[in-house]
Amino acid sequence: MNYCSDCGATVSLKIPENDERMRFVCDTCGMIHYQNPKIVAGVLSVRGEQVLLCRRAIAPRYGLWTLPAGFMENGETTDQAAAREAHEEANATLRDLRLYTVISVPHVSHVHVIYRCELVSDDFAPGVESLETRLFHEHEIPWDELAFHTVRKTLECFFHDRKQGVFPVHNLAFTIALPT
Amino acid sequence: MNYCSDCGATVSLKIPENDERMRFVCDTCGMIHYQNPKIVAGVLSVRGEQVLLCRRAIAPRYGLWTLPAGFMENGETTDQAAAREAHEEANATLRDLRLYTVISVPHVSHVHVIYRCELVSDDFAPGVESLETRLFHEHEIPWDELAFHTVRKTLECFFHDRKQGVFPVHNLAFTIALPT
Ligand SMILES: [Zn+2]
Ligand SMILES: [Zn+2]
Repeated sequence: MNYCSDCGATVSLKIPENDERMRFVCDTCGMIHYQNPKIVAGVLSVRGEQVLLCRRAIAPRYGLWTLPAGFMENGETTDQAAAREAHEEANATLRDLRLYTVISVPHVSHVHVIYRCELVSDDFAPGVESLETRLFHEHEIPWDELAFHTVRKTLECFFHDRKQGVFPVHNLAFTIALPT
Repeated sequence: MNYCSDCGATVSLKIPENDERMRFVCDTCGMIHYQNPKIVAGVLSVRGEQVLLCRRAIAPRYGLWTLPAGFMENGETTDQAAAREAHEEANATLRDLRLYTVISVPHVSHVHVIYRCELVSDDFAPGVESLETRLFHEHEIPWDELAFHTVRKTLECFFHDRKQGVFPVHNLAFTIALPT
């Protein structure tokens, strides 16, 4: 951030009064420009014994497999965002969405919110952000070609929970050691 | 938003190529400025039979009672954000945080993420954003003086679940009819 989105003047990084963090503050109008984590909403959609994955047609992680997911938009609920992403990336029609994993990824300031749901039909197909959409049995999952840790973790939770027959909500965090 | 935060030129509201929504797009450098929902993280902290509420010293809803909660910051996990807010607003020390309610509020593009936890001691006190901090038994809750629907709903879930002795994660949405 270089300029104030409100008045167009330059901004500086400083700690505002009564605050403890560095913020972008407008040098002219004084507006404080807060920056906050983003929600990535997605689905683990299940058809019989199989789960739906998409192969990414976009950066980052082009060509790797993922759950349908993307940034939540203003004006949506989390489940609406998850269903929209499944429609956009896989033309998938879903039912019975239930909150399943909530995973913080603090080094990129994302929170992944993944719903478990039923994929209603075999009538799905890649959207513009997918190269390929496919159903996988557990033994077919391309574990070495998954796009994100949160996708791997959600799949691990699911195959574990399915053996137990119960699907609690999992709240997790991925923390990595940043270079010092 | 009036100006590009990257180059300082004016922006216009338009639908970018391969998109379906109106965005602020820079008239000069072409940068698309996405706007996304914010996470409000908070706690329902329990001490014996009682729960902790704060009376707000800030707008909106000055003077009304709330759970300690506030905007999640970049670089945090959801539970870290919830614990930080409890410390800032009530100087509360917590343990055993468990995800409890995840409530979308789409008309303001917020998602409230509330943890149920144990309040470790009676040593709590108002922070700068609180007029008063107090423990309440169920029959003492000021239902008509609560600041937010999400606070009311989380308290209702808790007192209901406590009678059953189980505390599942509740995923809800508040939708209001906007004027047409
Ligand atoms: Zn300004
Ligand atoms: Zn620009």
